[in-house]
Amino acid sequence: MDEITRTPHRRARDYRWDEVELRPYKEDARALFRDITRQLLFSDPELASELRYFEVAPEGFSTLERHAHMHAVLVLRGHGHCLIGNEVRRLSPHDLVTVPPWTWHQFRATTGEPLGFLCMVNAARDKPALPSDADLAALKAQPHIAAFLDGKPAD
Amino acid sequence: MDEITRTPHRRARDYRWDEVELRPYKEDARALFRDITRQLLFSDPELASELRYFEVAPEGFSTLERHAHMHAVLVLRGHGHCLIGNEVRRLSPHDLVTVPPWTWHQFRATTGEPLGFLCMVNAARDKPALPSDADLAALKAQPHIAAFLDGKPAD
Repeated sequence: MDEITRTPHRRARDYRWDEVELRPYKEDARALFRDITRQLLFSDPELASELRYFEVAPEGFSTLERHAHMHAVLVLRGHGHCLIGNEVRRLSPHDLVTVPPWTWHQFRATTGEPLGFLCMVNAARDKPALPSDADLAALKAQPHIAAFLDGKPAD
Repeated sequence: MDEITRTPHRRARDYRWDEVELRPYKEDARALFRDITRQLLFSDPELASELRYFEVAPEGFSTLERHAHMHAVLVLRGHGHCLIGNEVRRLSPHDLVTVPPWTWHQFRATTGEPLGFLCMVNAARDKPALPSDADLAALKAQPHIAAFLDGKPAD
């Protein structure tokens, strides 16, 4: 028999959930992320994936990173922008973002409101890789990416 | 190299998404489900799970079923009720529902508005089992479940 305790129903209130811990991120010295919190909504030995909720405060941003595993993202609240590879996109509630393997990505709360999104990810996955100085220079050589990373995306 | 085409950004509008097909369910002779649509938001060989969006029209309900695999549900819109095992719960936006293995479950739009929810599920999973007449009788022997299945949950 299964000995795991699973609460069948956890209520939501204002982007917090019963029994779900809020995990703040610290500031990062290289400013690779800022003002973002994480909540792990679903994680279970029987589930092949986890579902997390990230919330980026105004002017904040998620880690600029890439990895072998994919991200499947659904925006839950607010507007903002994201970088996926070489593309910068404006995000609205319920938009879907697919981050393919080994693709640089970042989410930014660029519109003065919090940007909150769900992220589905394989439970078994590799660690993210952070950009080297050379990677950052290559990204910033593209003006629309430089503007995004500077918090001033074009549209 | 990866040959899969993955659209990085798919826009949402009114609970429909770019490039996502709406799959209506037919009426079921035994009234095990009614007035529910399905949209497959994320499915990819690199993702261990799928993310689907189900929307139940007012008075409609999802299939009453159980299976070895789990469901991880987040309510995206509306209110309603669900059955999980022997528990009937009232649902509000962003509430989380965990359906453990082999647990009878159903979602109902009981409040005159659509009930829409995300459901994360393992990509590799078993087929749902439907209740036998004996299963249904056993469920209906519990008054709060009988009321739920009759579309009249207590709270």
